[in-house]
Amino acid sequence: MRRPAEHSLALKPRPAGTTLQQWLYGALCDAIRDGTLQPGGRLPTTRSLARDHGVSRSTVTAVFEQLLADGYICARVGRGSFVAPGRSPQPDGAADVPLPASPIEPFLSRRGRQMAHHGAHLLARHEQLPRTFDADRIDPSLFPSPIWARLAARRARCYEGRITERPHGQGLASLRQALADQLALTRGLRVDAGQIAIVSSTREAADLLVRLLVNPGEPVWLEDPGSHALATLLATAGAKVVPVPVDDEGLRVDAGVQAAPRARLACVTAAAQMPLGPPLSPGRRIALLGWAQSTGAYILDKDLDGDFHFAGPPPEALKATDAADCVIHLGSLACSIAPSKRLAYVVLPSRLVDPFCQAMALTHGQPSLLEQAVLSDFIAEGHWARHIRHLRSVYGLRADALRHHLDRHFGHWLQLPSIQRGLSVTARLPDGIRDAEVAAQADAAGVSVTPLSAYRLAHATPAGLRLGFAAFSEVSIRSGVQLLARAIG
Amino acid sequence: MRRPAEHSLALKPRPAGTTLQQWLYGALCDAIRDGTLQPGGRLPTTRSLARDHGVSRSTVTAVFEQLLADGYICARVGRGSFVAPGRSPQPDGAADVPLPASPIEPFLSRRGRQMAHHGAHLLARHEQLPRTFDADRIDPSLFPSPIWARLAARRARCYEGRITERPHGQGLASLRQALADQLALTRGLRVDAGQIAIVSSTREAADLLVRLLVNPGEPVWLEDPGSHALATLLATAGAKVVPVPVDDEGLRVDAGVQAAPRARLACVTAAAQMPLGPPLSPGRRIALLGWAQSTGAYILDKDLDGDFHFAGPPPEALKATDAADCVIHLGSLACSIAPSKRLAYVVLPSRLVDPFCQAMALTHGQPSLLEQAVLSDFIAEGHWARHIRHLRSVYGLRADALRHHLDRHFGHWLQLPSIQRGLSVTARLPDGIRDAEVAAQADAAGVSVTPLSAYRLAHATPAGLRLGFAAFSEVSIRSGVQLLARAIG
Repeated sequence: MRRPAEHSLALKPRPAGTTLQQWLYGALCDAIRDGTLQPGGRLPTTRSLARDHGVSRSTVTAVFEQLLADGYICARVGRGSFVAPGRSPQPDGAADVPLPASPIEPFLSRRGRQMAHHGAHLLARHEQLPRTFDADRIDPSLFPSPIWARLAARRARCYEGRITERPHGQGLASLRQALADQLALTRGLRVDAGQIAIVSSTREAADLLVRLLVNPGEPVWLEDPGSHALATLLATAGAKVVPVPVDDEGLRVDAGVQAAPRARLACVTAAAQMPLGPPLSPGRRIALLGWAQSTGAYILDKDLDGDFHFAGPPPEALKATDAADCVIHLGSLACSIAPSKRLAYVVLPSRLVDPFCQAMALTHGQPSLLEQAVLSDFIAEGHWARHIRHLRSVYGLRADALRHHLDRHFGHWLQLPSIQRGLSVTARLPDGIRDAEVAAQADAAGVSVTPLSAYRLAHATPAGLRLGFAAFSEVSIRSGVQLLARAIG
Repeated sequence: MRRPAEHSLALKPRPAGTTLQQWLYGALCDAIRDGTLQPGGRLPTTRSLARDHGVSRSTVTAVFEQLLADGYICARVGRGSFVAPGRSPQPDGAADVPLPASPIEPFLSRRGRQMAHHGAHLLARHEQLPRTFDADRIDPSLFPSPIWARLAARRARCYEGRITERPHGQGLASLRQALADQLALTRGLRVDAGQIAIVSSTREAADLLVRLLVNPGEPVWLEDPGSHALATLLATAGAKVVPVPVDDEGLRVDAGVQAAPRARLACVTAAAQMPLGPPLSPGRRIALLGWAQSTGAYILDKDLDGDFHFAGPPPEALKATDAADCVIHLGSLACSIAPSKRLAYVVLPSRLVDPFCQAMALTHGQPSLLEQAVLSDFIAEGHWARHIRHLRSVYGLRADALRHHLDRHFGHWLQLPSIQRGLSVTARLPDGIRDAEVAAQADAAGVSVTPLSAYRLAHATPAGLRLGFAAFSEVSIRSGVQLLARAIG
C-alpha cells in the first residue's frame, strides 16, 4: 500500500527517570490531546517513529498497543493507526465503555465502522502464526481427524437421501439430545433437548440475542475486564454497555445494581471469568440470579472452555440453578472440537426458544446439516468424551509445566493461581508494574502474553498477564518461559 | 396449547351481494377499527369463527391471510392470531412500509418482536409439506447426492490435516475462484476472486450489509411488491424502508429518486423482479447505476435463481456494467445446490471487501470449511455445470407443462408471460379480481398459489398469482391446474 510522504513528528523531550516507552506513550498522548495529532488523522508508522526518535520498533509497537487499549487510537489492518476521532480517555469507573472509534470512512455506517474496526483485530489475530503463550489457541494436532473424517464420509454417504433437506429451525434433534445428555453429565445442567438450538458460533448467537432482547439505549452489564468483541457487538446493536467491575469472586453484582439496576441483560463468564480466571462465587450466583428474577432481566453466560478442568469436579453451569429460567447458556465447541466446524449451541429459557429460532430463520438460519450430523455421531459413539479426556490430560501436563517454569524463573514476582481449569492462566504482576509494557517486552522477544489492561473496558485493571498453554508443547513452554524471563527479568 | 374459553364474536350482518369471504373480511376490519377487537388482543380461532358464523374454515383462513397481508393482524405459530397493536392500514403509496407489528411480548425487544414475528412465517413455510405450486421450492430428488457424498467423503479424508483449520476471513480461495470463473462464463460478470466472500446465506449477508452500510433512520429503497423478509431485516436494523413501485421494466428509479433521493442503499432483483418476473430494463439499469454513482449509494442486487433460463442468453448481472463499483451482487446457491448446504456468496465493491470480512469475523464468521471444499470440487470437476444443465431441461419442461395446462383451462382469464427463466411464474388476473380470495379458494382445494398482494409493501399491486413449477412433476402440474380450475373456474 502506497503511503503519503511522512514528516517527522515533533515530540516533547524525555524527562529523566522515565523509560523510553513511558516517554513515548506520554508524548503521543500529549500530541493527541493538544491537537498536534488530529482526530481521525493517521499516526506515523512504527518504522518512522522508531527511526526518527531512536527507539526500537518493538517499543513503538508496544506503545501503540497501549494507546489502542486505552482508546486513544485505532488501527486498520494494512492501513496503519489513526487517532480516534474526538476521543479523550475515560476516567476510571466511567459508566460508558470507551469503544475506540474508527477513522472516518464515510462509506460505512457508524456501527459499520465499529464492527469493521474490531473485526480487523480479530482477523489479524486469526491470521497470525501462533506464538508461544497466545491465549485462545488450541492444539489442532490433538484432534482425532481420522475419526472425524471417517464419520463424515459415512454420513455423507448415508445422508444421500436427506442431504438436500432444510435443517430444522433448532438444529438436528439427535445432536441436541446428545448435547443435553452431556450437559447433564458434566455440568449438572438438566435441560430438555427442546431448549437447545444449534448455532454456528457463540458470537453469532450473541449477535442475535442482543438484538432480540435489548432495545436501543437499554443498558447491558458487561464484565470489566472482559471482551471487547462482545462490547462492540452490544454497542453496534444500540445497547448501552455498562462495564461492571470484577473481583476474585467474579462479577460485582452490587456494582452492577448500583450502575444500572434495570439492565435488560447481564453478560457473564460464570465458569471462569475471562480474563481473570476465578469462577463466579456461590454467593454472587445467588445475588445475580435474584437480581435477574426480580427485574425480569436475562443473563447471558458464555461457557468457552468449561470442559477443561484439571482438579476437582467440573464447574456447575450457572443455568443449573436457574429457577426463574432467565439464564441463556452459550456453549462453545471451538476449543473441544475445532473452530473450523462452525458449531456451537445455546441453551435457552423456554419462552425464548420460539422467538430465537424464528429470528434465526430470518437472519441466517442453521449451520451445515452434515457437520451437525457428524458431531452428533462423534458424541454418540463416545469419541467426544474420549477426546476431551485426552485433551484434559495433555493440557493438564502443559499447565503443570507452565506453573513449574514460571515459579522457577519468576518466583513471587508473578503471582500464579493454581491452574485448575481452562486453556490459559492469568498471572498477577506486582502493583505499579505496567503490564502492557511487560507484554511489549515479551512481544519483542517473540513471546505472546496478553496484558490484563488489554481487556479493560472502563475500570482500572490489576496488572497481570494472560498466558495460553493449551496449544504449546512442554518444550515450547519451557523455552517460552526462558525467553520471557530474559525479556522482562 | 391450552386456550382460554372463547366467547362468540359478534359481527355486523352480511350485506346482500357480498361473498362470505368479503363480508367476513370487512366485518373483522370493522371490529378491529371500532375496538371490538383490541390492539394486541387474540382473535378467535379459525375453528370457532367458522362454527359461530356458519362459514367454512378455509374461508376464515383465507380472510386471516388477507388481514395478515394487509397488516391488520399478526400470527404466531402455535399461538394464534393477534390484532396488530395500534395499527391502521396504510393508504396506497404511503412512504412507510406497513410492517405488521406483533402481539405484546415484553420479554423481547421491539425489533426482536418484529424479527420473531416474521421469522415465524418463514419457519412455518419451511416446515409445511410442499403443496403443488408452492413458490421457492426446488426438487431435491434431482440433486446428484451420490456425487456430492463421494466428494464429501474424499474431502473429509484428505482434509484430515487441515480439518481443524480456521477458515480464511473471505472463504476458501479455490471456491471463490471457481465462483468467479462461473460468473464470468454465465453472467458476464468479470470479478477478481478477491472481491468474493463466502457466506452461509444471502439473508445472513443482507443482515450484515444493512448494518454495515446504513445508519439508523437512513432511507433504503425496496422494490414494492417485494420481500417482506428483507423489509423486516432492514427495519430491525433501524433503516427507514422506502417502498419503491415496480412496473414491467422493474424498479421505478424515478419514483425512488422522488421519494428518497439520498437513500443509502437500493435493494433490487435485477435479473428478474421478485415477484413480478421481468428483468430490470437496460434504461432503468443505467438510471439506477447513475443515481447510485452520483449520490454514493449502494445497490444490493439479489440474484436468487439467475442460473435458470430456458430461452435466450442468461441475464447479465447488474454488476457487470457497474463502472462505479457500487453494486453488491448477492448470489444464492440454495436453488442450484441445496438449501441445506448453507452456502451463498457475495461479490463486493473493492472498498467493502475488508470491512465486510472484518464485520463478519465479529458477528459470525465463515460457514463450514468442509462444505466449502466440497462445493469447490463439485464446481471444478464439472458437476455443477452438468447439474444446472439438467435442472434447466427438467424445469423447462415443467414450465412448458404449466403454461400449456393454464392456457387450456383458463385461456385469457390468466395473463401468462412467456416463461423464459426462474423457478416460478407470475400470472396476472383481470382487473377487479381480489387475488387473495382466489388464492384462498385454491388453498381450500389443496393448491398453493401466492397472491401478488402478499408481496405488497405499501403501493397497490396488480392482481396476480405466483406459481412455482420447479418442484413438481408434469403430472402434478396437470392435476394441480385441474384442481385450480375447479376451485376458481
